[in-house]
Amino acid sequence: MVKEKVDVEYNKVTPEIAGELGTIFGEKNVLTEVEKMESYAYDERGKQFRHMPDVVVKAENEEQIAQLMKLANAEHIPVTPRGAGSGLAGAAVPLYGGIVLSLEKMNKILELDEINMVAVCEPGVVTNDLCKAVADKGLFYAGYPMSVESSYIGSNIATNAGGAKVIKYGSTRSHVLGLEVITPTGEKLSLGGKRRKETSGYSLLHLMIGSEGTLGIITKVIINLMPTPNATVDLLVPFGSFDDAVKASSNVIRTTKVYPVSMEFMDIFSVKTTVEHLNLPPLPAQDKAEAYLLFTLEGKNRDELDELAETAGTACLEMGALDVFVASTKTESEKVWNVRINTPAVVLEKWPHVLGGDVVVPRSETAEFIGRTKKILEKYSGVQISFYGHIGDGNIHPVLIDTANRTDKEWMEFSETIYEEVCLLGSQMGGTVSGEHGIGFAKKHVLGQSLGNYPISVMRGIKKVFDPDGILNPGKIFDLK
Amino acid sequence: MVKEKVDVEYNKVTPEIAGELGTIFGEKNVLTEVEKMESYAYDERGKQFRHMPDVVVKAENEEQIAQLMKLANAEHIPVTPRGAGSGLAGAAVPLYGGIVLSLEKMNKILELDEINMVAVCEPGVVTNDLCKAVADKGLFYAGYPMSVESSYIGSNIATNAGGAKVIKYGSTRSHVLGLEVITPTGEKLSLGGKRRKETSGYSLLHLMIGSEGTLGIITKVIINLMPTPNATVDLLVPFGSFDDAVKASSNVIRTTKVYPVSMEFMDIFSVKTTVEHLNLPPLPAQDKAEAYLLFTLEGKNRDELDELAETAGTACLEMGALDVFVASTKTESEKVWNVRINTPAVVLEKWPHVLGGDVVVPRSETAEFIGRTKKILEKYSGVQISFYGHIGDGNIHPVLIDTANRTDKEWMEFSETIYEEVCLLGSQMGGTVSGEHGIGFAKKHVLGQSLGNYPISVMRGIKKVFDPDGILNPGKIFDLK
Repeated sequence: MVKEKVDVEYNKVTPEIAGELGTIFGEKNVLTEVEKMESYAYDERGKQFRHMPDVVVKAENEEQIAQLMKLANAEHIPVTPRGAGSGLAGAAVPLYGGIVLSLEKMNKILELDEINMVAVCEPGVVTNDLCKAVADKGLFYAGYPMSVESSYIGSNIATNAGGAKVIKYGSTRSHVLGLEVITPTGEKLSLGGKRRKETSGYSLLHLMIGSEGTLGIITKVIINLMPTPNATVDLLVPFGSFDDAVKASSNVIRTTKVYPVSMEFMDIFSVKTTVEHLNLPPLPAQDKAEAYLLFTLEGKNRDELDELAETAGTACLEMGALDVFVASTKTESEKVWNVRINTPAVVLEKWPHVLGGDVVVPRSETAEFIGRTKKILEKYSGVQISFYGHIGDGNIHPVLIDTANRTDKEWMEFSETIYEEVCLLGSQMGGTVSGEHGIGFAKKHVLGQSLGNYPISVMRGIKKVFDPDGILNPGKIFDLK
Repeated sequence: MVKEKVDVEYNKVTPEIAGELGTIFGEKNVLTEVEKMESYAYDERGKQFRHMPDVVVKAENEEQIAQLMKLANAEHIPVTPRGAGSGLAGAAVPLYGGIVLSLEKMNKILELDEINMVAVCEPGVVTNDLCKAVADKGLFYAGYPMSVESSYIGSNIATNAGGAKVIKYGSTRSHVLGLEVITPTGEKLSLGGKRRKETSGYSLLHLMIGSEGTLGIITKVIINLMPTPNATVDLLVPFGSFDDAVKASSNVIRTTKVYPVSMEFMDIFSVKTTVEHLNLPPLPAQDKAEAYLLFTLEGKNRDELDELAETAGTACLEMGALDVFVASTKTESEKVWNVRINTPAVVLEKWPHVLGGDVVVPRSETAEFIGRTKKILEKYSGVQISFYGHIGDGNIHPVLIDTANRTDKEWMEFSETIYEEVCLLGSQMGGTVSGEHGIGFAKKHVLGQSLGNYPISVMRGIKKVFDPDGILNPGKIFDLK
């Protein structure tokens, strides 16, 4: 367990309060046994960062959540909302114990509205289930977090999830038209809607998006859909030089004006690790490559795709690519993406001590940022670094791996020191400390360093407007005091 | 002059304070003569809503603005930021006198960054100047307010301006990557940047967008650019029946899945008025049509455009269109758009008493909304209603025209009563009271009615976090007390 500076005093859930929760949610939706609560104590950031809640409740509707928040305020007990637990920054970890509010049962797609081209659903719908349901109607949801098969749509919104299609389609924020929210004091807010324009006061909708469950609990979402893009093609481009691959990532876009849906980066270490661990067939040129770029291009028809692939491929070859492999069938595409998608999980599984990063810089700065990050790492021993990520939008995941068998505590201190340096480097280069994973409690400290006092004091002031007693998800993004 | 409930007491600008302003801005940038200040007393909402400031200052850089805000707080004098004055809701009108801060001199495009595909500029750049400058680099700015030739880019952001390309590209909010802002207390905030992903605490960037100069003064903007769309074609589609045209607007998208860049609506009254007033050649079928739809379609090449035009045109004919006119040259397009773009100004010029509206409903509700708005108007006499607007995104501009020679005061009371009813109707139908013009002081009352107490109290709380003394643009969006 990691020690947190407890800056706020809360009450514990007494048996009486647990009884009241049973009345609100029904006995079957209230967990108090330690074994049953254990999996609600941590997220994908890792078990070593767990905190046990006093109780877990599973909501089935917004009224229950409003009642919960009124009770929690009256009793001064913290509430931590939780989606699928696929977050990487600890936003769903109940730092101060109290009540974990699981949204797993609010998982219905309520409406697919073809006239307005929107989907209306509960927050606990798995992202991929939404993607499939709208595809059946000939429509398209453009959000694509790498955790698409496990993450919930409400949590995508709470973290403004990014992923691999942000170059063309933007982060989750770009696709949210409306939200219904229960505030920390149990009020209901309806923000946005099926409408497509709005200048009606401050955008509480956009303030809510990315607030990591600290300003309100999302109970309903209205999501923008688009016509299905007609066709896509994937290009896998191995480079003999790591640096050439990095440089090509921004230069291809600049010189060709081909604007891909995705442009991913994988170093050879992450590729080999994933391929070997999962017993996959090797990627083309795996023996000669130092890094790969992976493009997805979208076009109206096969002719246009061929032209785009030719333009991008030729540019890559001129910039030092070893070859260009076109994955024109679904099977071929899946094979390639399989490696990229599984890398984070494989790395986490294979080594006990891993710190996965999430830094963004302007696209023009990726080469310089990666070079300077490597330089930082040269100061340290007993640590391996690997790079992968959404390089086309400047979002890099530098991953630190313990190669010196440190204790949990040693690794946490060691890795966080390095990682803060890397985050601040990104921030100083016109980037920011988190592109898509969020701040949670993992990056509170470095966010404060990166932004300085005034912006944090403004955020704290806004938090107080919604949550005067600091009941909802305290200790995330910034300390309350 | 309209009477406002003065809910906050402010001090006047004394000669001593005017002297201090001269020191900050230079004497040439401080206006105190009534004749020179007159054009800063109102916006496009109309001269009858004017309020004279005590002084007008023209900023040349952010340091001056920071000093101004510190002085204004110390002396308790309100500051009203002003762009081109092309707003329609009175956001730039100095309700409580004090200081008008004009951004007209901060009009430089600072950088066109082709690698990151962004433009960096000062807030006072005219939107169309930005569009032209980026087009010269083979890039594209997708924002397109109807006031593109006069409005400033900073003010587009302050009002989250909409316009005619929102169906495909979204409102101005979608195109803003970064802002630099001086807060009401004179602090500097750097929000976002050239980076394309961010989940680093609450989005103060998106909170600032659309806040109508009440939370901060925009001093620098970073705007997203795209590759230039390859080709467009415009379709002008006259309908013999007003209702058929309205119904076709949502049904064409639903049945064909053709997603236009623009889909505008013009009733025959607005078309004839504009054509006659400006001595333009009549639009095709002007003698038989009751309404027009105007499409802009975008495609990769001529073949794709032909196919899109064929699909959309055929669908319109099946839905009652009299004919479909394809404007395939730039001259033909301009001729048609000329009518649509000039309608608002012509209507304002031709009649002394006009109230231009801006209501949004979900696309599915446009026919019902327009029908019910007409019903509301039947209760009143001495008033003409005309409809035009961005019907493809559900944003309608119902325009009320005085046909009974009322006095200013009579018209204001009469028209606002009707208009509030229309706004609330839109709001009840899943829409909102302003899609793109903003709230200013014109719609404060109806916004409060539409949202209810709690959301307004949250906005007021947020305002206080940024502006504890209520110095920056008070009396806009909501009353401070």
